[in-house]
Amino acid sequence: MTVIDTGNQRSFMELALEEAEKSGARGEVPVGAVLVLGDRVLACNGNRTLELNDPTAHAEILVIRTACAELGSQRLPDCDLYVTLEPCQMCAGAISFARIRRLYYGAGDEKGGAVDHGTRFFSQPTCHHAPDVYSGIAETRAADILKDFFQSKR
Amino acid sequence: MTVIDTGNQRSFMELALEEAEKSGARGEVPVGAVLVLGDRVLACNGNRTLELNDPTAHAEILVIRTACAELGSQRLPDCDLYVTLEPCQMCAGAISFARIRRLYYGAGDEKGGAVDHGTRFFSQPTCHHAPDVYSGIAETRAADILKDFFQSKR
Repeated sequence: MTVIDTGNQRSFMELALEEAEKSGARGEVPVGAVLVLGDRVLACNGNRTLELNDPTAHAEILVIRTACAELGSQRLPDCDLYVTLEPCQMCAGAISFARIRRLYYGAGDEKGGAVDHGTRFFSQPTCHHAPDVYSGIAETRAADILKDFFQSKR
Repeated sequence: MTVIDTGNQRSFMELALEEAEKSGARGEVPVGAVLVLGDRVLACNGNRTLELNDPTAHAEILVIRTACAELGSQRLPDCDLYVTLEPCQMCAGAISFARIRRLYYGAGDEKGGAVDHGTRFFSQPTCHHAPDVYSGIAETRAADILKDFFQSKR
């Protein structure tokens, strides 16, 4: 879909990028996410799989869990998710279960994405709720954070 | 794959079925899971999405998180997962990330499964680790628990 690039959207993605950078500084794969209800940030976090010894602790899962706890609901139908990288198989499933309204993501992920690559979950018959998807916001910076991280690891 | 039906496997699935029943008694969709290392049960749990206000709190995710915390690792390469229902999109992703060795599941899930239905994640190029999959163990009982639950809800 076409990106409606408002100032708010840029600043939410900016926050997600900061979370990605903090993630990388902790030695985690640098991905960040922000969960928003209207103009209110309900949760922001980065990937913490190593720190928490939890393979499910992707940025998206962490912000969904925090926002659901905050709202006392397992569904977030009026909420929008900003994430620096295209969500994976697991996170695409969680986004659907949480009934998230809009998904804004930065860089595409050919190897592990499940929105516009891989299983393209949101267009499958076994997907029972699909968010509106807006891709490519701050794409270059989101991709550069990941590229720099993996280059520094070599 | 062919099911190698040993006594242990039956008793681990039995435990998963008990978790499914307890789940249903709590008003949750009745699915249960058990995570095993050798002959040792590391975690058993049922679906708790309503109770925890957490759309990611499927039985599989809960036992993976508990077992990872127990072992202090985000990977469970020598562990086997028993679950009463074919894992969904999200859980298939988590199973792959956790590097689980073998997946034993009960009933197939045409509407929401992602192993032998739907996105069939484990045979996709974006899946970087696939467990050995054994399906149909205690299938009828697993399916009946779900059927009874949904009939009682009508």
